[in-house]
Amino acid sequence: MGVQDGENAAGAADVEGKHSKSALKKAAKELEKAAKKQAYKAEKGGPEPSEGAAGGRVDEPDISEFRYGELPLNQSQIKETRTVTRVEAVNKSLANKTVLIRARLHTSRAKGKQCFVVLRQGRSTIQMLVAVGPGISKQMLKFVTNVPKESIVDVVGVVQPVPKPIESCTQSEVELSCHEFWVVSLSAPKLPLQIDDATRRVTDDADEDNLNIRVNQDTRLDNRVLDLRTPTNQAIYRIEMGVCKLFRAALEKKSFVEIHTPKIIPAASEGGANVFTVSYFKGSAFLAQSPQLYKQMAIAADFEKVYTIGSVFRAEDSNTHRHLTEFIGLDLEMAFDTHYHEVMDTIGATFTEIFRGLRDHYADEIKTVGKQYPADEFTFLDPPLRLEFPQAVQMLREAGVDQGDEEDMSTPTEKLLGRLVKAKYDTDFYILDKFPLAVRPFYTMPDPNNPKASNSYDMFMRGEEILSGAQRIHDPTLLCERATHHGIDLEKIKGYVDSFRYGCPPHGGGGIGLERVTMLYLGLDNIRKTSMFPRDPKRITP
Amino acid sequence: MGVQDGENAAGAADVEGKHSKSALKKAAKELEKAAKKQAYKAEKGGPEPSEGAAGGRVDEPDISEFRYGELPLNQSQIKETRTVTRVEAVNKSLANKTVLIRARLHTSRAKGKQCFVVLRQGRSTIQMLVAVGPGISKQMLKFVTNVPKESIVDVVGVVQPVPKPIESCTQSEVELSCHEFWVVSLSAPKLPLQIDDATRRVTDDADEDNLNIRVNQDTRLDNRVLDLRTPTNQAIYRIEMGVCKLFRAALEKKSFVEIHTPKIIPAASEGGANVFTVSYFKGSAFLAQSPQLYKQMAIAADFEKVYTIGSVFRAEDSNTHRHLTEFIGLDLEMAFDTHYHEVMDTIGATFTEIFRGLRDHYADEIKTVGKQYPADEFTFLDPPLRLEFPQAVQMLREAGVDQGDEEDMSTPTEKLLGRLVKAKYDTDFYILDKFPLAVRPFYTMPDPNNPKASNSYDMFMRGEEILSGAQRIHDPTLLCERATHHGIDLEKIKGYVDSFRYGCPPHGGGGIGLERVTMLYLGLDNIRKTSMFPRDPKRITP
Repeated sequence: MGVQDGENAAGAADVEGKHSKSALKKAAKELEKAAKKQAYKAEKGGPEPSEGAAGGRVDEPDISEFRYGELPLNQSQIKETRTVTRVEAVNKSLANKTVLIRARLHTSRAKGKQCFVVLRQGRSTIQMLVAVGPGISKQMLKFVTNVPKESIVDVVGVVQPVPKPIESCTQSEVELSCHEFWVVSLSAPKLPLQIDDATRRVTDDADEDNLNIRVNQDTRLDNRVLDLRTPTNQAIYRIEMGVCKLFRAALEKKSFVEIHTPKIIPAASEGGANVFTVSYFKGSAFLAQSPQLYKQMAIAADFEKVYTIGSVFRAEDSNTHRHLTEFIGLDLEMAFDTHYHEVMDTIGATFTEIFRGLRDHYADEIKTVGKQYPADEFTFLDPPLRLEFPQAVQMLREAGVDQGDEEDMSTPTEKLLGRLVKAKYDTDFYILDKFPLAVRPFYTMPDPNNPKASNSYDMFMRGEEILSGAQRIHDPTLLCERATHHGIDLEKIKGYVDSFRYGCPPHGGGGIGLERVTMLYLGLDNIRKTSMFPRDPKRITP
Repeated sequence: MGVQDGENAAGAADVEGKHSKSALKKAAKELEKAAKKQAYKAEKGGPEPSEGAAGGRVDEPDISEFRYGELPLNQSQIKETRTVTRVEAVNKSLANKTVLIRARLHTSRAKGKQCFVVLRQGRSTIQMLVAVGPGISKQMLKFVTNVPKESIVDVVGVVQPVPKPIESCTQSEVELSCHEFWVVSLSAPKLPLQIDDATRRVTDDADEDNLNIRVNQDTRLDNRVLDLRTPTNQAIYRIEMGVCKLFRAALEKKSFVEIHTPKIIPAASEGGANVFTVSYFKGSAFLAQSPQLYKQMAIAADFEKVYTIGSVFRAEDSNTHRHLTEFIGLDLEMAFDTHYHEVMDTIGATFTEIFRGLRDHYADEIKTVGKQYPADEFTFLDPPLRLEFPQAVQMLREAGVDQGDEEDMSTPTEKLLGRLVKAKYDTDFYILDKFPLAVRPFYTMPDPNNPKASNSYDMFMRGEEILSGAQRIHDPTLLCERATHHGIDLEKIKGYVDSFRYGCPPHGGGGIGLERVTMLYLGLDNIRKTSMFPRDPKRITP
């Protein structure tokens, strides 16, 4: 626990000098004007209005007047540039300096004439001590003690080094000695979930203090605004942003053009199953199951290399750890010169850049997630490992699995293969090339040398498929031939086939599920952990 | 017109040296093997099979054998790294060098024993001369002449400077002397639209040669794969990508976090009107009209500054030049410290960075678009001009418009105001702040000093609104009060209101329509020109 070094005179003077004409004081004066407007707040169960800055009993003058209280609702009354310090920046280098911080009241614990407050901002926390003494009245202490957790506060305090690290805070070297304490936005006093509970490590042993309470997934998702405040979630969605950013950077270096493809489409893009219907004025339409047709049209329209990041919809009644009805697709498609391996290698190298970028630039975030959800570090090879389907079949057979030459792999088989590959090659990422033609969509280019194989590949992370791709048939005649072989009505794919009638370069591509990449990179167990507002057959809220 | 300087011996030797073992030759050998497979191509009306590399009359040996023909369908038969030159890179510096190019056959014109071919690659074109002479047979000339426009070809040729610039090509200093000519992908001989017609400047006077043919919008959109190949469209969608890229760069510098928000939502996000219904398993759902609720939830969830780029859906039966039923929203939302102008200024500065970035890095593309659709250069001020609503009302009244103090502006009034602002301040972009409270949504923060005003703003480009934004009400009680005032059923917005019950920082934001920004920056007249696959009440194809 931190120790209060006593009021620092220089620090206090600093406060006066820096903040006497600050928004805080002006705002405090606004309080009275705004008192009537604020009356409705009482019903929320926050601090009693009589305890505001203008409060305190009349017979007991408050030495802390204008040092604390509830600020009026911010309606942009005052325009001012203030020096606000980030919690993550508060360390020993700021010793004895006075700082102004806006943060959440994470926890508070009164102990006699003191109150230990933990302030939280994103993934950072710092302890603040409010101790009755020069400048800090009993009324102020009581006010602070009564502010509900999760309220947003503006505090002014002096940075004090502590002799023993405060293990419970990220800013462990210092604490703040409180000088001012203003409530910016009150939280309701009863929270549907506690941030600490929602951050608790799954494998923690029971401990007496917190009864080892954890928060189940539905409670989290029903109260997503609170759940997303955990350091773990703050980290996860920054890593997810990183995946997109690194994906774009890798492709833009290679002159890919970003495009946007329509989600409302006239016909089911990948066959009739699993598609959502939309009522469209007097008719109806569908939600795109992938941007593939449009990516390919962009190639036929001379954009050469394209990518698109956008929502993808699957009306699949799959209630599993890895299916969503709406997810973010990272899709790319490119013309190639002689061989589809140009495409496959581009995608492989893109993954390598993503993995390397995450490792090098998101180490802190990955560590934060690992504290709650421990996982082995993600391993990868550069260039990535490429196996051919028959090699996988052989590895599986050697491991006792009855895998057919032209049979698609089941999910458990894929996972087993992932373990075998990891054991043999020490990589969590690999490419499986040359899938059997029979298990791929009609538009997949057949292998020129082996009538049972195709120019197609899947890519895997920790044994789960995260990309499916191929060379596409760019010749309308062969495309019709293959569609007919698959029993597809040519009339229904006329628009698609016609895209290739006016010359189209050989091309290929693939589609990646963003949430799956983030989930598997971090070794998480459920895709709902990497979708900010997940959609599945049973959930479309919030 | 370019002049053929005659066969260059050094160049020819170069060809042998560089390409004798090339994919082209190997591929040519594959031709025979593939002959049977290719039989189906005859029906497409391309060059007659007898004219392939193996063709020519038996009694007349073809000196160009293995120099031309139709390549077998690329199924990735051969894996090879070839040196392919971009058309845009072919200029005098490559004089007398032999290059290999993959491009479209844009046009071809036979003239006696010569054929002038124009090759097109993206926005670049180059002339190639095929002249009967050493190495080039009559059969080869005939073959080249018969290849349909828009076919994709691999050509090998020697770069020859020309004495007089070839005005009709982007590469005007040089032409290619053809050595090899291989068809990679044949186009159907009849095109539903001609690329040259689709590229013709709107204001061009009639000229005898081309009868001043232009292509109407429906024909373009019905054949979008062809239409998108025009240099104008190649440029437009690169500029549109630039808008996204510059938007992201500006915000990422300021620590914004990219998020993704669901498109399938349980209730209409902005009131019940104009929303598409989706059948969702046994129930139904809606398509999001904006990501606003989710952006605000991300702010309440401590992400501080967020942006999202994604599809937005409006079931509005508006058949105008600027409405789409599906478009790309560039949305942002941020917590601020004291005043919503922090948000407004951030958005304004983001626009400035976009405009400056387009001007500085997309000058070529802008010039290309301007050739077909001339427009005045887009002007802007840094920092942007900010007017308040009452100032606009006064300017309009001085111009004779009967504009009410609390009345929203009509589209024609907005356009007039744009012209007045341009005349007075010389800017095509400005911010209009402090809209009347009465014309804004219920969640808009009222002005603290003027009960009839609000903390909200619109932003305009060339007199058309491209962003609407505001400080949002972050207090649940005031939010309910305002919703009730607007006659909104509180039960229906419960989820939204509840997001603010556990403390929320003051915040604001706005949403931008990507297609509108691109359209207005370029001074185009229809939003269908800046949506790759536009959706409106009457069109959901292709």
